[in-house]
Amino acid sequence: MNSTTSKEIPYLAHANPEIDADIFYMTGLMAPDPYTALKIGDDLVLAVSPLEYGRAVNESKATRIVDTQSLMNAAKEFKAQGASQAGAQVLVMLRDLEVDKVEVPQDFPLQIARDLEKFSVKVETYEHRMLQERLIKDDAEVDQVRESIAITQKSLTLVETILGEASIENQMLKWQGEWLTSERVHREIEHLCLDFDAEAKHPIVAGGDQACDPHERGHGVLYADQMIIVDIFPRSKKHHYWGDLTRTFIKGKPTDEQKKLYQTVYDVQQQAISRICERADSCKIHQEVEMAFEKQGYRTEKIGGGYQGFFHGTGHGFGLDIHEPPRLGKIQPVELKEGMLVTVEPGLYYPDPGPGGCRIEDDVLVKRGGCEVLSDFHYNWIIE
Amino acid sequence: MNSTTSKEIPYLAHANPEIDADIFYMTGLMAPDPYTALKIGDDLVLAVSPLEYGRAVNESKATRIVDTQSLMNAAKEFKAQGASQAGAQVLVMLRDLEVDKVEVPQDFPLQIARDLEKFSVKVETYEHRMLQERLIKDDAEVDQVRESIAITQKSLTLVETILGEASIENQMLKWQGEWLTSERVHREIEHLCLDFDAEAKHPIVAGGDQACDPHERGHGVLYADQMIIVDIFPRSKKHHYWGDLTRTFIKGKPTDEQKKLYQTVYDVQQQAISRICERADSCKIHQEVEMAFEKQGYRTEKIGGGYQGFFHGTGHGFGLDIHEPPRLGKIQPVELKEGMLVTVEPGLYYPDPGPGGCRIEDDVLVKRGGCEVLSDFHYNWIIE
Repeated sequence: MNSTTSKEIPYLAHANPEIDADIFYMTGLMAPDPYTALKIGDDLVLAVSPLEYGRAVNESKATRIVDTQSLMNAAKEFKAQGASQAGAQVLVMLRDLEVDKVEVPQDFPLQIARDLEKFSVKVETYEHRMLQERLIKDDAEVDQVRESIAITQKSLTLVETILGEASIENQMLKWQGEWLTSERVHREIEHLCLDFDAEAKHPIVAGGDQACDPHERGHGVLYADQMIIVDIFPRSKKHHYWGDLTRTFIKGKPTDEQKKLYQTVYDVQQQAISRICERADSCKIHQEVEMAFEKQGYRTEKIGGGYQGFFHGTGHGFGLDIHEPPRLGKIQPVELKEGMLVTVEPGLYYPDPGPGGCRIEDDVLVKRGGCEVLSDFHYNWIIE
Repeated sequence: MNSTTSKEIPYLAHANPEIDADIFYMTGLMAPDPYTALKIGDDLVLAVSPLEYGRAVNESKATRIVDTQSLMNAAKEFKAQGASQAGAQVLVMLRDLEVDKVEVPQDFPLQIARDLEKFSVKVETYEHRMLQERLIKDDAEVDQVRESIAITQKSLTLVETILGEASIENQMLKWQGEWLTSERVHREIEHLCLDFDAEAKHPIVAGGDQACDPHERGHGVLYADQMIIVDIFPRSKKHHYWGDLTRTFIKGKPTDEQKKLYQTVYDVQQQAISRICERADSCKIHQEVEMAFEKQGYRTEKIGGGYQGFFHGTGHGFGLDIHEPPRLGKIQPVELKEGMLVTVEPGLYYPDPGPGGCRIEDDVLVKRGGCEVLSDFHYNWIIE
């Protein structure tokens, strides 16, 4: 949050690419540990451990690669004056490149920043400099996301098949001779994703009251006649792009209340999708979803310790991150731009004695005058 | 790196528990997104999104849980004055608790720190306050690590079985009717780990020259008569502790040079294990390994862009992190303490025309007067 936006100021990042999509986007180098990257004009300089050196040469976009071992001797001088190990190495790197001012991401490690400042390097935070570039996806990126969505859809089909094959005994589901648990379905999804070179991460298969806690993954036996939320978001191990889809199923017979809940979420979701286009306001789309639910009599409120109704965003950007801007939510209004990818996933949650939880999620690509729904999975939800 | 060490100063963390073991250790709450935690005296206050609220109540060690939604209105005031969204929420939380000074970890997000300072909250970095506590493992933690090591060993057995079953055609390995690739073996390991409720993460199965690049996971067909490094480090999905073991195998017939390489690494590794005990110096153990290799005529040097010889640490602490202090390496000397867990994994790497790469890794628990080797996997490496 500051006024410096010049691309001429060197941009410094120090992060673990496994969870920091910005540094991975910047460098193209995946690694299990944090490393340092500096964008300076058209050059990209990496400081990586000797362990990563070979891969950095082969796989990264870097124009120059330094190994941290070679910085160690020079770093001693800074360490002796109180800098941290990581800070001292960055200081050597910046000194060698004659850099005395850097922009860094907002989540840059505090101690390194303090070490730099101590030795008169100016450090300015820049909200999402890399992110701004990577929010707009090019065709190659969209194709990679399509691949991840295809794996997500295969996973949904698998869950549908399992629920179809399951029998009902004492209201509980049974499959292949055993009680069918959320954990078992998680595992089946995980195995399937592995076979397509993706990580399922933390699929959600949660029924009944569990489905009303949107980050509860589900545990224990699944029951008939309960709404089961299946939210699957695998990440490709090849290109690291995500897919993210949700369907709600029921094994057995829904009540009228459950039918109305499903139909409402479906209608509101389709309506929200129809509102997505270049220049649309992310917050307004979310407000409309809130209002549509209210209008249908679905109230959102805090009861006891927990929320009921609709209490999460309508959607979120995704790509190399599973959650990235733009958010279709209450805060941080964004004007949508062609090439952005967002999920659209309104939901309603009413635990016992309510009808349960329901969420429907698709992935869309923002275009001029509308959007393209990248996912292509049906909305039949009743499995007999 | 500063002198404040009083436990009376509230300790503030804001991180993603999936990769930040400190915040997970502090709170017991796993979540897919960053959240805020404040340790203040005996209290632990969490600020989590409404999505995590229910799970935070059920699963975390928190004595008080705030949902970020409820902070949003009050946060507007700070945002209007230039604070970031995350910073504004933390500011509200601290104001409500009348906290005007905090300690934070070294990798605390810079922007939040700056937001706090702007509103007169003192922010001091503290090197590893949580980490100091979690470096010493209690019996329950060691048991969880034993579970993860058992899964690692099952994975090694699987690889051994696959290599045993493989046939050799034109020097290439064939298994179940197909050329046996590193990727195929990765996948088999991943499936096995899933079945034991663990994530294999990024197992290494790398032969020949690939094995000489210690972070190269291996790709393409595996060959006979080449040393194949198999480094497996699964993380339990139940308790999130890691195991980490490496063996080097050869399918076929080793040359005398390869035999000598293996024997040297084995001898040096066993020697290093015998040196681990309470009060031992982590750097000294590493130096002895370096010297032992040198003495056997194995030189370490940078040739062209890459290193040859022994160019990584002898071992590293692990637990909730796969890499945590103490490092058995060149820098950051640590006096080992009873209850620390470390890997012992010297290796030597000489690409073509050299004999290849070899690393042997076990996991040990530091005790008085010695250590307990927690892993129990044989060292037979020649598979015919």
